[in-house]
Amino acid sequence: MVEDAGYEALNVDTLATRLQGVASLSEVVGGDAAGWTVTEVGDGNLNLVFIVEGGAGKAIVKQALPYVRLVGDSWPLPLYRAFYEHHALIRQEKRAPGSVPQVLHYDEPQAMIVMEFLEPHIILRRKLINGEKVEGLAAFLGNFCAQTAFRGSELSMASAEKKADVGLFSGNVEIPAITEALVFTDPYYSAEMNNHTAGLDGVVATLRADTALKVKAQMMLQRFASNTETMVHGDLHSGSIMSTDTSSRVIDPEFAQYGPMGFDIGMLIANFLMSYFSQPAHRADDLDDYQSWILQVIADTCAGFETEFRRLWATERTGMLYPKSLFEDQGQDSKPACDAVLAHIWQDAWAVCGIEMHRRCLSLAHNADFEDIADEAIRAPLEARNLMMGADLIHRSQDLSGASAVCDMARAYNERDIL
Amino acid sequence: MVEDAGYEALNVDTLATRLQGVASLSEVVGGDAAGWTVTEVGDGNLNLVFIVEGGAGKAIVKQALPYVRLVGDSWPLPLYRAFYEHHALIRQEKRAPGSVPQVLHYDEPQAMIVMEFLEPHIILRRKLINGEKVEGLAAFLGNFCAQTAFRGSELSMASAEKKADVGLFSGNVEIPAITEALVFTDPYYSAEMNNHTAGLDGVVATLRADTALKVKAQMMLQRFASNTETMVHGDLHSGSIMSTDTSSRVIDPEFAQYGPMGFDIGMLIANFLMSYFSQPAHRADDLDDYQSWILQVIADTCAGFETEFRRLWATERTGMLYPKSLFEDQGQDSKPACDAVLAHIWQDAWAVCGIEMHRRCLSLAHNADFEDIADEAIRAPLEARNLMMGADLIHRSQDLSGASAVCDMARAYNERDIL
Repeated sequence: MVEDAGYEALNVDTLATRLQGVASLSEVVGGDAAGWTVTEVGDGNLNLVFIVEGGAGKAIVKQALPYVRLVGDSWPLPLYRAFYEHHALIRQEKRAPGSVPQVLHYDEPQAMIVMEFLEPHIILRRKLINGEKVEGLAAFLGNFCAQTAFRGSELSMASAEKKADVGLFSGNVEIPAITEALVFTDPYYSAEMNNHTAGLDGVVATLRADTALKVKAQMMLQRFASNTETMVHGDLHSGSIMSTDTSSRVIDPEFAQYGPMGFDIGMLIANFLMSYFSQPAHRADDLDDYQSWILQVIADTCAGFETEFRRLWATERTGMLYPKSLFEDQGQDSKPACDAVLAHIWQDAWAVCGIEMHRRCLSLAHNADFEDIADEAIRAPLEARNLMMGADLIHRSQDLSGASAVCDMARAYNERDIL
Repeated sequence: MVEDAGYEALNVDTLATRLQGVASLSEVVGGDAAGWTVTEVGDGNLNLVFIVEGGAGKAIVKQALPYVRLVGDSWPLPLYRAFYEHHALIRQEKRAPGSVPQVLHYDEPQAMIVMEFLEPHIILRRKLINGEKVEGLAAFLGNFCAQTAFRGSELSMASAEKKADVGLFSGNVEIPAITEALVFTDPYYSAEMNNHTAGLDGVVATLRADTALKVKAQMMLQRFASNTETMVHGDLHSGSIMSTDTSSRVIDPEFAQYGPMGFDIGMLIANFLMSYFSQPAHRADDLDDYQSWILQVIADTCAGFETEFRRLWATERTGMLYPKSLFEDQGQDSKPACDAVLAHIWQDAWAVCGIEMHRRCLSLAHNADFEDIADEAIRAPLEARNLMMGADLIHRSQDLSGASAVCDMARAYNERDIL
């Protein structure tokens, strides 16, 4: 794991000199480091990110900072998150080939990953705010979530390998702690770093008075913190996806940990729902069409997840769980077992989905879908719909029939005047 | 962790010479090693166990063997289980003071633990077969299970400490693998090392044809293998408890791992139920009285668990889960949260209970409660009651009302002629 000794933050002036000896970088951008153009583009919450451009091409250099960039050095954060990001990228590439940027170079003491520059990809959240559609998005995301969930679990992995991996990732403490507090707990009381849009006080008070809701959110925290079903991305929102009009990649897995199989897809759907609820402030003529497209992406992502998960169940079930010796080898269909596993995944996913819809409006780190709506009088009622549907999802997570029921809920909340 | 280099199995002739320099041992048994009497008493399945007696007293020396003693060197098993047993004993003593033997000395390369000799304690399973009652047994066991469950979880522990502990115990692979196979999977198909009493073929076929039952057993395996709620003893049956007529201790935690909070108490109750069902072959005049006493122990153990768990919830809830900031600090009672946590614990416990009742009659490592019944024509119908109640518990684990309902089930099955 990374120690701070010898670590030095990069900047646009020092990067070329410091990285000129990295062969895998030179191969991609060209050997003449003196001619490299280095631009800092980090617009995320945690790290330094640079584009390096040379005669032959471009690459990304990502370096962890020893604190939370969004907050400053008052919130220290260990450099070792680059270690986990690197391990996560490698595993995601293996489990869902082609889904993440190619890693060109990893420097552990510098907490630095040099990786493929994705072009002309832009952050999916931005495309959603712009009203741009992405072909194949649902199929890509459904496959990514299903493949990483299945292949990182003991449905597929040998137990010894999976347990060693759980041990490795158990060292990632501070990063999951952010999720544990910001996502699962802070939204439900007046935590110090919280903020919410003026006009939402009544809705927020309603949520925080709802003991049953808080119990369910904490039960989900308990599952998140003490369930190692598979390696999850841990932060799979539309800001962790980059897309062109026809292709997509998943980035930024530094929140990776072993967790519930439904976690990633639940957080992902939440971010599509927040995009959906925010659209009336971003669109005019094409509002209905674009909102319908978002719901279709949700439905198709969930359907794609199920299809791919069932395919892997049939073809790659080589781990110790639900072994063929108990089912197929005895002439018994294992479909009821797969149904049960999927039902649990969706129960977790809908609860996580509702919680993510809350935290992005109530806790630290709001999302641009709503934050880009400058007029709070417009933003507040849209966030209110999102918040109340989030509560509904958490309460009903155990018995929702599926994605189409969730899309129906979204349509109904989209018509409601809550404030 | 233990490497095999330098390891040498002890025997009655070498022990005194090899351990004469261990001061903590000499202090207890007396310094004159030449006068020590060494007796091998290991009647368990895995290890060498010796009693060392000197002028001043006695001590136990327990040493892991590099294979499963019950099976032989065809089944290798890593010596590092002594490392985990040692770590588990230390944690259990801290979390439930006075509940386990005092550790006098630990030798990692020799995979050896020197510990307090318990006298006049005998294995509880033997007392149950003999029809002997143990005063205070239920209170002791309820407290042990509640205290280790609560204090090893993030209800109580700091997250960083708990995650480090999960990382430590994730190295314990082969021992949990025994549980994973022998307990959760082997009973439900004709695994190589299985055996069952003649006359049970029909019952066994019924269980193995029950797809829903196997799905539930595998869902519990999934939870066991990928849930790190607390450090469980992992093998808490009546052979892992030593009692006098008025006091008890828990021994042999080499199966310790992080797992579901309901695991230990579920396995424990199963062993009381197996004792209960076996009693008609061991008792005559005092049968009703003794069977009633066993059911009372079950009811009181569960009640004691609940009472102690709720007391710890009120007084020691210092971890990140269900924090007071969300409940008490907002003037809201956290009882619904505690109720929900306990409900989940019991759901897991009843499923584990049913599975343990199956594996002890169908898989490897049967228990003496039934095995001591030499006449298979007497044994089989008693085991059949036990097996069918086990299936009932697994099927109904999600909605059983509590221990008294379980005791009612036991009374009803005790009257049934299944074969």
